[in-house]
Amino acid sequence: TGVATMKFKSPPVNSLSLDFLTEFCISLEKLENNRACRGVILTSAIPKIFSSGLDITEMCGKNTEHYAEFWRAVQEMWLRLYGSNMVTVAVVNGSSPAGGCLLALSCDYRIMVENPKFSIGLNEAQLGIVAPFWFKDTFVNVVGHRVAERSLQLGSLHSAPEAHRIGLVDELVTEEKLQEKAVAVMAQWLALPDHARQLTKSMMRKAVLDRLVAHREEDIQNFISFISKESIQKSLRMYMEMLKKKK
Amino acid sequence: TGVATMKFKSPPVNSLSLDFLTEFCISLEKLENNRACRGVILTSAIPKIFSSGLDITEMCGKNTEHYAEFWRAVQEMWLRLYGSNMVTVAVVNGSSPAGGCLLALSCDYRIMVENPKFSIGLNEAQLGIVAPFWFKDTFVNVVGHRVAERSLQLGSLHSAPEAHRIGLVDELVTEEKLQEKAVAVMAQWLALPDHARQLTKSMMRKAVLDRLVAHREEDIQNFISFISKESIQKSLRMYMEMLKKKK
Amino acid sequence: TGVATMKFKSPPVNSLSLDFLTEFCISLEKLENNRACRGVILTSAIPKIFSSGLDITEMCGKNTEHYAEFWRAVQEMWLRLYGSNMVTVAVVNGSSPAGGCLLALSCDYRIMVENPKFSIGLNEAQLGIVAPFWFKDTFVNVVGHRVAERSLQLGSLHSAPEAHRIGLVDELVTEEKLQEKAVAVMAQWLALPDHARQLTKSMMRKAVLDRLVAHREEDIQNFISFISKESIQKSLRMYMEMLKKKK
Repeated sequence: TGVATMKFKSPPVNSLSLDFLTEFCISLEKLENNRACRGVILTSAIPKIFSSGLDITEMCGKNTEHYAEFWRAVQEMWLRLYGSNMVTVAVVNGSSPAGGCLLALSCDYRIMVENPKFSIGLNEAQLGIVAPFWFKDTFVNVVGHRVAERSLQLGSLHSAPEAHRIGLVDELVTEEKLQEKAVAVMAQWLALPDHARQLTKSMMRKAVLDRLVAHREEDIQNFISFISKESIQKSLRMYMEMLKKKK
Repeated sequence: TGVATMKFKSPPVNSLSLDFLTEFCISLEKLENNRACRGVILTSAIPKIFSSGLDITEMCGKNTEHYAEFWRAVQEMWLRLYGSNMVTVAVVNGSSPAGGCLLALSCDYRIMVENPKFSIGLNEAQLGIVAPFWFKDTFVNVVGHRVAERSLQLGSLHSAPEAHRIGLVDELVTEEKLQEKAVAVMAQWLALPDHARQLTKSMMRKAVLDRLVAHREEDIQNFISFISKESIQKSLRMYMEMLKKKK
Repeated sequence: TGVATMKFKSPPVNSLSLDFLTEFCISLEKLENNRACRGVILTSAIPKIFSSGLDITEMCGKNTEHYAEFWRAVQEMWLRLYGSNMVTVAVVNGSSPAGGCLLALSCDYRIMVENPKFSIGLNEAQLGIVAPFWFKDTFVNVVGHRVAERSLQLGSLHSAPEAHRIGLVDELVTEEKLQEKAVAVMAQWLALPDHARQLTKSMMRKAVLDRLVAHREEDIQNFISFISKESIQKSLRMYMEMLKKKK
């Protein structure tokens, strides 16, 4: 059918570790270069979670080189996904905070399970960190400036119904109908001539993509100097402790 | 009353041919320079169609000079209408795809007949072509980035109720009430002091107008090289064949 | 609690006079520099009016130096408030036209009394004047381009319910619940780590703030040359006469 499905399966919560990101980029590039593949569905093989976002262990107690390598991989993931020539559909079948939300935001269309227990959002501020400008740009392009400003400052995690109401996801469906709906959406987008659709997509996203490309090294340095602060390291350690206790 | 009405009457479907565009620009300029005229209503004299958009015969099987002349006329139409000092109200009394939609988007206010059979949208992608950046900028200014991104990639034609829901048109009224409503809207806008209203309008639209002015020749060259491609010519010929069969 | 309240009390209508603006900036700066203060609530001590906006007597029949000093103070107010590191909540307990609306727009969150008799909006065009570009930028950041374009050109004053519908205010509550709601909202925003929240806020607002900083003197000169026109002075005198008769 020309449609691939990438099912995230990195237990326990599909954290975006350096390994995950590297594998994701390689897989995406392979599909991108495969002319038989015109669309890709992103979803999770792990119940209740789409992706928990950037792996905090990669940002905690490591050296500068590691931070640089990790951040470059995060950038690469976004540049490839947001700029993909394929039709990209996120099937958000579980919660999707922070970097997980970015994954969904970077697709062409977002379907979420209509379970109010699942939430999605760029909640970085809750952890004492700041979403980088290109997370913000991607978010603004989806929900507009005001909703983004409020949501980012509050580090909001939006329940599925709320996410739908503010336009963060395009559609809610029951768990049973997810697959069927994803296939239908993909068919609708693939009905368009590839060339025209790709040029149109690029026209809409180029300004924001170019901005990171132009400031990529600066953005890496910003990340390193921010994440290396003792106060930030302390926040992250506390957050990880809290997560461990939750289990 | 200081209000002119331009009724498009270019059978069968008010295509924006070179002749149509030239006459449109001359008429608009005359009104613009007539100090007694403060507002203009754009509507169609042809049942069921506002304007079918750019005339495909102008883009098919012609030479480079013709393409350049045609595209310059399309640009000119938009620069004059989007930047008009007059109050411009589109009375969309029929379907309005592609360039017809741009005409409506370039006005200050859009009233559409509440007939679900009539549709409006920038459906260029359906034809295998790409709406130029200033169509896109105008669209984004009206419906926001996300709605524009999805609608442009899908080449969507929105039924009147849907067009209203996404903000593509401001109001739906019955065919009988169209004229009355247009007059009322015009009166509301003309109640403002011209000078303040014009400066405000210019402040809102200047960035987007300036962008085309700055890249006008480049945009013409882009159009020529795109439209001259054999693959695009083939798409357009097929589309025209389809239209002929429809009749 | 770390939260200050600034209650405007400049009878009869909390006009933003030079004195009001100067005192406002001094008060805000003191709070900004007080590390114990993390949030500020802006509200009015005068019934039925939040703020009536810029004091027209400061713009009428004065000399160039006065206009320059006044306009610099208006700019300063906005730069400090829109760029404040504190959480800023506007409790709009009365009508709030023009500059009064800007005050509210510059906060992080807007609560308005759900009284349809109270209205809010950037109605400058009604007076024959034009909202400066940074009023416009602030407005667009809150309600989006299309709503701003229409509202600014019509000089609309939106009733509380309408203001809520278009996103100009975030929430409507009864007069009795205003205080309680303001405290609850403030608590929600203060629950976030200051540093992350402040950096996020700055990221969202920096582009627009920088634009005025870069064009500040030019903006003052624009204001002076505009306001010094005899036609504008006449409009303002007529408007003041009308206000006097209303009493």
